[in-house]
Amino acid sequence: MDNFNFYSPTEFVFGKGREHEAGQMVKKYGGSKVLVHFGGGSAVKSGLLDRVTASLTAAEVPYVTLGGVKPNPRDTLVYEGIDLCKQENVDFILCVGGGSVIDSAKAIAAGVVYEGDFWDFYCGKAAVEKALPIGTVLTIAAAGSEGSGDTVVTQEATGLKRGAGSNALRPRFSIMNPELTMTLPPFQTACGACDIMAHVFERYFTNTPEVEITDRLCEAVLCTMVKETPRVIEDPMNYDARANIMWAGTVAHTNICGVGRSQDWNSHNLEHELSGLYDVAHGAGLAVVMPAWMEFVMPHNPMRFAQMANRVFGCAMNYEKPEMTAKEGIRCFRRFLHEIGLPINFAELGAKEEDIPVLVEKLGLGDGKTWGFVRLSSEDVAQIYHIAAKAAL
Amino acid sequence: MDNFNFYSPTEFVFGKGREHEAGQMVKKYGGSKVLVHFGGGSAVKSGLLDRVTASLTAAEVPYVTLGGVKPNPRDTLVYEGIDLCKQENVDFILCVGGGSVIDSAKAIAAGVVYEGDFWDFYCGKAAVEKALPIGTVLTIAAAGSEGSGDTVVTQEATGLKRGAGSNALRPRFSIMNPELTMTLPPFQTACGACDIMAHVFERYFTNTPEVEITDRLCEAVLCTMVKETPRVIEDPMNYDARANIMWAGTVAHTNICGVGRSQDWNSHNLEHELSGLYDVAHGAGLAVVMPAWMEFVMPHNPMRFAQMANRVFGCAMNYEKPEMTAKEGIRCFRRFLHEIGLPINFAELGAKEEDIPVLVEKLGLGDGKTWGFVRLSSEDVAQIYHIAAKAAL
Repeated sequence: MDNFNFYSPTEFVFGKGREHEAGQMVKKYGGSKVLVHFGGGSAVKSGLLDRVTASLTAAEVPYVTLGGVKPNPRDTLVYEGIDLCKQENVDFILCVGGGSVIDSAKAIAAGVVYEGDFWDFYCGKAAVEKALPIGTVLTIAAAGSEGSGDTVVTQEATGLKRGAGSNALRPRFSIMNPELTMTLPPFQTACGACDIMAHVFERYFTNTPEVEITDRLCEAVLCTMVKETPRVIEDPMNYDARANIMWAGTVAHTNICGVGRSQDWNSHNLEHELSGLYDVAHGAGLAVVMPAWMEFVMPHNPMRFAQMANRVFGCAMNYEKPEMTAKEGIRCFRRFLHEIGLPINFAELGAKEEDIPVLVEKLGLGDGKTWGFVRLSSEDVAQIYHIAAKAAL
Repeated sequence: MDNFNFYSPTEFVFGKGREHEAGQMVKKYGGSKVLVHFGGGSAVKSGLLDRVTASLTAAEVPYVTLGGVKPNPRDTLVYEGIDLCKQENVDFILCVGGGSVIDSAKAIAAGVVYEGDFWDFYCGKAAVEKALPIGTVLTIAAAGSEGSGDTVVTQEATGLKRGAGSNALRPRFSIMNPELTMTLPPFQTACGACDIMAHVFERYFTNTPEVEITDRLCEAVLCTMVKETPRVIEDPMNYDARANIMWAGTVAHTNICGVGRSQDWNSHNLEHELSGLYDVAHGAGLAVVMPAWMEFVMPHNPMRFAQMANRVFGCAMNYEKPEMTAKEGIRCFRRFLHEIGLPINFAELGAKEEDIPVLVEKLGLGDGKTWGFVRLSSEDVAQIYHIAAKAAL
């Protein structure tokens, strides 16, 4: 096991009706003037935003609002938020929404207390050392941003999608009411589930041996997702299944599933180019890319894939030929994705095999290689995209 | 799933040589004058205490020391610590040791900033609302106190062993170097392992249905312990096995394995009377009590025990007669405890069946019942002790 630090100071406030506590929680964590940050109309239409602002009023905490965060949140709105916070002397940001809203709020939180351009944090010029405190009211189980210090923002003018991370960006609290996810369309629910599983797989396929506890924690999340996702697809109002998925999504990304070991994240990187070019949902892109990546890298360590196949999908272990078990596990994963309604190849996703050179070019590896479980060259990446293009059950 | 809050703000600093960072960590968390609290001679003899105080000196943080914490920490030393902290204007407590040292430090931390008698917190007269910040350098994987807000202290004059708990008592940081546990005698290692597993079982046997994610996280810790414990008993210097157990011990008790559900804790309560009367190790007492408790309460929900048997010990699931699978799982657990060198009945523990009325009397239920998975009367408790007395492989 490698040395590690694990730090997840967020207070998770989980369960039915907990959004009514938003005002008290802001007060508990020292907020005296709040920016309420949100996305499109659903938080407004559902009445959620009213419930949250009513709880702020009840707690006597004044607030201003800024809506309009889009999926793949843009720098333009971040600049607007920073200006608003400065103008209104905001000292706490409360986001109501999913990963995009939270990521946008993290960018604003870091930008408000920084003298330079907030984009410095995303282009690697500066590291986030401090930020306004933030709290979240989560509306979709997917990104895990409610329990992480990570944020991804897109620069509108260039289309560049870049990330930053810091413990200073971890939310002070996250309110998680599974009821709020019941009205999500099945496709969006499935995309979220795939993102959650991908966050675990990116950590599971490691070159660090002997990290049994982290392996088992990863498998705990994966087994939960394999059981609970088909249940919510079939019965969207199933509270317990929604609750299990929502909490699994947080556990998947606080990094408790990744400590003490090397990680991968190449599937996420390959997917970012797909969603960049075709504006497809991140979880749908992952459903196409990740099993293809698995097929390509499996020979590097068949036993690791066989262990996953055995422990997560219940495949019989073939100790003499673990690659057989491994392949069966990857087939099970792809079948699972198909059954919950996700695309499994380029055609179903709306991508084109002839665009692969463009995707590889945009990834920008040149003659270099990625980091991860298996370091990938541009040629390797092209091969993975080709596997993804042609994939079938 | 029940509503819950989960809050574990401790920064865990894990791995080889990390005790050298103690001084920096104290500084990071605002300590300017430290009480270094420790137990008997092993921290001194091993040189650990010197390394820790050297790191404080290097960080230019002055300190005073207070050693002498015994297993089942006493109120008398707590009073001494409170006086010393006040006298020396201590603003941070650094404990070097295991659960007893940490629990003693938590009591001092709460007592220093409280006007009344610190025992008020333990006898239920007052709740801990604030405390001095504490940090830990852990030397044994067992109690999980490095990641919890709980503390248990014994009142010397009366022999009363009582607990208190508060988020204010959660350590700011915990330094965990698995190398420090390599010199523990096998019996103490095994006792720690049993305590870790018991912390999970107390949470696993719940009356709340449909908490798959928490079930799976519990099983993750249990499977890890079943694999790694025999390895350290056989090869005490195995770093990776030690590391897996040490981290599993923390995961077992931050309460991530217990959220969203009812818990039990009756085995712990029944064990406290055993270790109180015979001064046996807590983990050894649990090895005798817990399987007996399992046998007694299993009929309440055979399927839950069968699931444990199947997922943790790999027993074949008998869906028609789950109680058969359940019984096999309990047998596996007891065999496992025997194989790692723990007692499995009263004789091996050094307890006497004829003392059972005394044990039951001391538990003090009278005509009442305990809380938990199955509420136990005095008669039920006596039956469990009798099962424990006679247990065999």
